[in-house]
Amino acid sequence: MEQATGPAGVDAAAVRVDGERLWATLMELARVGEIDRGGVKRLAGSDEDKVGRDLFVEWCQASGLTVGVDRMGNIFGRRPGHDADAPPVLIGSHLDTQPAGGKFDGAFGVLAALEVLRTLDDHGVTTVAPVEVVAWTNEEGARFAPAMLASGVFAGAFPLEYGLSRTDTAGVTLGEELVRIGYSGSLPCGGRPLGGYLEAHIEQGPILEAEGLAIGVVTGVQGIRWFDVRVDGQEAHAGSTPMDRRRDALVAAARLVGEIDALAREAGPDARSTVGVITASPASRNTVAGSVDLTVDLRHPDADVLAGLAARLAELARAAGGRAEEIWYSPPIRFDDGAVAAVRSAAELVGGGHRDLISGAGHDACYLAGICPTAMVFIPCRDGISHNPAEWSSPEWCEAGANVLLQAMLQLAGVAPA
Amino acid sequence: MEQATGPAGVDAAAVRVDGERLWATLMELARVGEIDRGGVKRLAGSDEDKVGRDLFVEWCQASGLTVGVDRMGNIFGRRPGHDADAPPVLIGSHLDTQPAGGKFDGAFGVLAALEVLRTLDDHGVTTVAPVEVVAWTNEEGARFAPAMLASGVFAGAFPLEYGLSRTDTAGVTLGEELVRIGYSGSLPCGGRPLGGYLEAHIEQGPILEAEGLAIGVVTGVQGIRWFDVRVDGQEAHAGSTPMDRRRDALVAAARLVGEIDALAREAGPDARSTVGVITASPASRNTVAGSVDLTVDLRHPDADVLAGLAARLAELARAAGGRAEEIWYSPPIRFDDGAVAAVRSAAELVGGGHRDLISGAGHDACYLAGICPTAMVFIPCRDGISHNPAEWSSPEWCEAGANVLLQAMLQLAGVAPA
Repeated sequence: MEQATGPAGVDAAAVRVDGERLWATLMELARVGEIDRGGVKRLAGSDEDKVGRDLFVEWCQASGLTVGVDRMGNIFGRRPGHDADAPPVLIGSHLDTQPAGGKFDGAFGVLAALEVLRTLDDHGVTTVAPVEVVAWTNEEGARFAPAMLASGVFAGAFPLEYGLSRTDTAGVTLGEELVRIGYSGSLPCGGRPLGGYLEAHIEQGPILEAEGLAIGVVTGVQGIRWFDVRVDGQEAHAGSTPMDRRRDALVAAARLVGEIDALAREAGPDARSTVGVITASPASRNTVAGSVDLTVDLRHPDADVLAGLAARLAELARAAGGRAEEIWYSPPIRFDDGAVAAVRSAAELVGGGHRDLISGAGHDACYLAGICPTAMVFIPCRDGISHNPAEWSSPEWCEAGANVLLQAMLQLAGVAPA
Repeated sequence: MEQATGPAGVDAAAVRVDGERLWATLMELARVGEIDRGGVKRLAGSDEDKVGRDLFVEWCQASGLTVGVDRMGNIFGRRPGHDADAPPVLIGSHLDTQPAGGKFDGAFGVLAALEVLRTLDDHGVTTVAPVEVVAWTNEEGARFAPAMLASGVFAGAFPLEYGLSRTDTAGVTLGEELVRIGYSGSLPCGGRPLGGYLEAHIEQGPILEAEGLAIGVVTGVQGIRWFDVRVDGQEAHAGSTPMDRRRDALVAAARLVGEIDALAREAGPDARSTVGVITASPASRNTVAGSVDLTVDLRHPDADVLAGLAARLAELARAAGGRAEEIWYSPPIRFDDGAVAAVRSAAELVGGGHRDLISGAGHDACYLAGICPTAMVFIPCRDGISHNPAEWSSPEWCEAGANVLLQAMLQLAGVAPA
């Protein structure tokens, strides 16, 4: 790998993106699928998705990139490198959104990558390895479950047929929709060597903003365990049953909710425990609850610690007269040390403050991490809000993130001599 | 009022009902509208209600009672007294059930009253005041809201037009259904003097069974206050939001559920506090709840204590970052001291053990208490279960309850000299 020093006359380490151009591009894309309160709705495979993709492809072509689309609809815009045989470095994210999503989740990572390639053109920088901006299909999983579907197929986690046959609630398959909107491409999905993958994304959490830092150096992704918990009691009349003769499932479940919250608080700053859904049965105002169902989401970047939390949850549920059934496990992911170091040194170079972070959410980078050196760049988002029209990141944060993506990419792809 | 001493040759205080006949009558009625697991479905105004009413009227006529039906479909079976001008004493309950109800709720009170009048015939006892067995229309409120509708009209709590115009979910009025099943009677509903009202009923709670007592002397009915409570927090991503940066509405609401439970426990044995329904929003597994709605049911027989509980609830809700809105208040009812004393001395006479109780549920007696000396007799029901096919009371408990109803009624109506 080459050092990030430029050709004669160009100090590549001093090259910076055009923040205003990046912002204008982001805002232009945000008009595609615009909804109330500044939100965006571009569900995978929808008409809005097609318009957004067309715009992105148009921008890629205007920058002289070679655009290819694979069987899962993933779009690649390739900028040649000095060494045509070197495996390309991919930079990007996704263009689809939640049903009431925002302007930044996904779109920022794709358009920051586009801005990086535009900037290389502006400054006449040639990389050693080719660089491809990528837009992955159906990252959100909002219309077609599971999430991160097409990057998963690309990385070999799912067969192609599985990916194409996923259906929405109306029974329409993703494959049909890709044909309909003109993005069922001819390239094979995956199966080719990559030099690395970098993804810029909003944090979707409150830490960077709260600490006044521009950049999160993402070292990995939390492991996640999901549980369904049932607490049993005894249905009883709310008027005629004295307090000391009750077995109120909701009172027991409420205590358990507090204990589950304490579970992560006691396990250090990287642990998370959340009860998001609770249902009391029979759900009558004047009946003591006979049973309560609740969901538990446990997260930690260390698989052993996470297993310990799960064991403790099972004990707490039993003590509350219930049981916890595990329904999903996503193991922790640790990003490549070299790729992470490239992001860290790039953040140092660009300035604005940075810290290491563990991603609490899944990203396409999770699957890419299995097939090539991968890392992520986080930027702050206001109040940690995402998946919501109120999602917001500032022009300055976006610019800083794109600059870190640029400098980290240059370290992975190398800068060719003039 | 006469003493409960009988005519020459009959010691009225020694007269007892025929427990086997009572049980057989109860079981025969329970076949009308029989459903799975021993349950009964006789919704007010339904075909099953008609068959049940017809059977009851047939039994009344077989006992020589004069049957009358009023405009609300309330059925009265009158046995003359020695003093034709004395206001009658009413004894009874209701024949309608919940959609998946049991054999005893309502039916026991009507048929115990019928058994009391049959017993007077067996022993040749004449009361001073006339006695009427009554079956009130639509006590449950399961098909036509509100509950205790026709006794409410009888007692002047609702206008007749209001009662007849109540609709079920299909838009059919109670008045139409009474005409259809032949129980839109010609008697005025209410507006006549009564000597008293006694109602026998299953406890619908666990106290009598647990304490091994046959009889509850009901001294009144709890006041009830219903609240909708909303607790606000901040929606956040379950993965990317550290525990110390959360405002988790469900964790706050769970603590509040525990505090609400403690509220009644600390207010003495007659207090009740119940959260029956809880809903977290947005109800997503991997989103920290932004708000939680819950229902609160507070009960106490003393209006001032109940008001204190309500004030304390408002404070607790505020401290949890929420607010409590009162949506319904049913004031406590205290039954007539004389009528209660009659039940208590009758229970003493009959034996089997008794204690004073506050009813936790509403009954037709609540409205009757506003227009005449009223009291109730409770008998145990297994595990406190009612409004359920599993509702059960034993032949012995039913017999004891009918005997107490008999002896208490004799005190209110008086026993005529031979």
